[in-house]
Amino acid sequence: MHTSPLKLVTIIAEPVLESRITDELRSLGATGFSVVDGRGEGSRGLHATAVPGVNVRIEVLVPEPVCARIVEHLAATYFTSYAVIAYVSEVAVVRGEKYLNPTKEQR
Amino acid sequence: MHTSPLKLVTIIAEPVLESRITDELRSLGATGFSVVDGRGEGSRGLHATAVPGVNVRIEVLVPEPVCARIVEHLAATYFTSYAVIAYVSEVAVVRGEKYLNPTKEQR
Amino acid sequence: MHTSPLKLVTIIAEPVLESRITDELRSLGATGFSVVDGRGEGSRGLHATAVPGVNVRIEVLVPEPVCARIVEHLAATYFTSYAVIAYVSEVAVVRGEKYLNPTKEQR
Repeated sequence: MHTSPLKLVTIIAEPVLESRITDELRSLGATGFSVVDGRGEGSRGLHATAVPGVNVRIEVLVPEPVCARIVEHLAATYFTSYAVIAYVSEVAVVRGEKYLNPTKEQR
Repeated sequence: MHTSPLKLVTIIAEPVLESRITDELRSLGATGFSVVDGRGEGSRGLHATAVPGVNVRIEVLVPEPVCARIVEHLAATYFTSYAVIAYVSEVAVVRGEKYLNPTKEQR
Repeated sequence: MHTSPLKLVTIIAEPVLESRITDELRSLGATGFSVVDGRGEGSRGLHATAVPGVNVRIEVLVPEPVCARIVEHLAATYFTSYAVIAYVSEVAVVRGEKYLNPTKEQR
């Protein structure tokens, strides 16, 4: 199997944050992203600004340094005021080399 | 990266089971859950009671002891009579400490 | 916990490829699959033949040999001409033995 180890970052957020977060993912070095609509319930009190229960699930496949930047950015930007959930999984990506973004990686 | 290792439990079930299962997840110690609508096909004969092909994908982030309770509960309650699929992944959750449910954990 | 280690293969593709890919997954030994509708953006230039941004996320739980066949098949069949993304995660499946397909495994 020709696969590369990469990080899958899953971000669950209010729909109103979708385009802002995906723009930021691009700026932080992601070469693409995927979004699915969902619903859910979280810890009490966290959804003060959201339509209760409606969310988007944003996923990006990124190398470790980009993952670290994304996680740091999300924690610093959203975790105080928004009901954002983010978690990282280890995955083996088929032909994963295309997820490297040389321009951004040089920074 | 300020992350905590947690278990991501994914449950794929008939839509009619959604609220029953999410209520049970709460009782078993989950602090929240996320749901996405999907479709699919499983092993032949398993979908006797379901609208063929329509399902919900329920996800919860939980610490290990809650994961074990959920898995045990699902296997005991649904696996004989329902087309329920459940699997567990290891994930690193940003600010994962909020997924601990002190009240439930003391039980 | 009565779980079995299996591979979760996630395939993100143009909707027009859904039934073709799921048929192929069956032929390659998968006993079922699950599909969710999504949207996204990928590397520039890859989406020439797709409705921009609309995709399907196809998931299969399979043992290692079936996973290897699926990954090989996808890479050989789709990666040159289509915007197909595929990645593999390690998961622990509750009562995972039902995902073994004895007929196909004997091949």
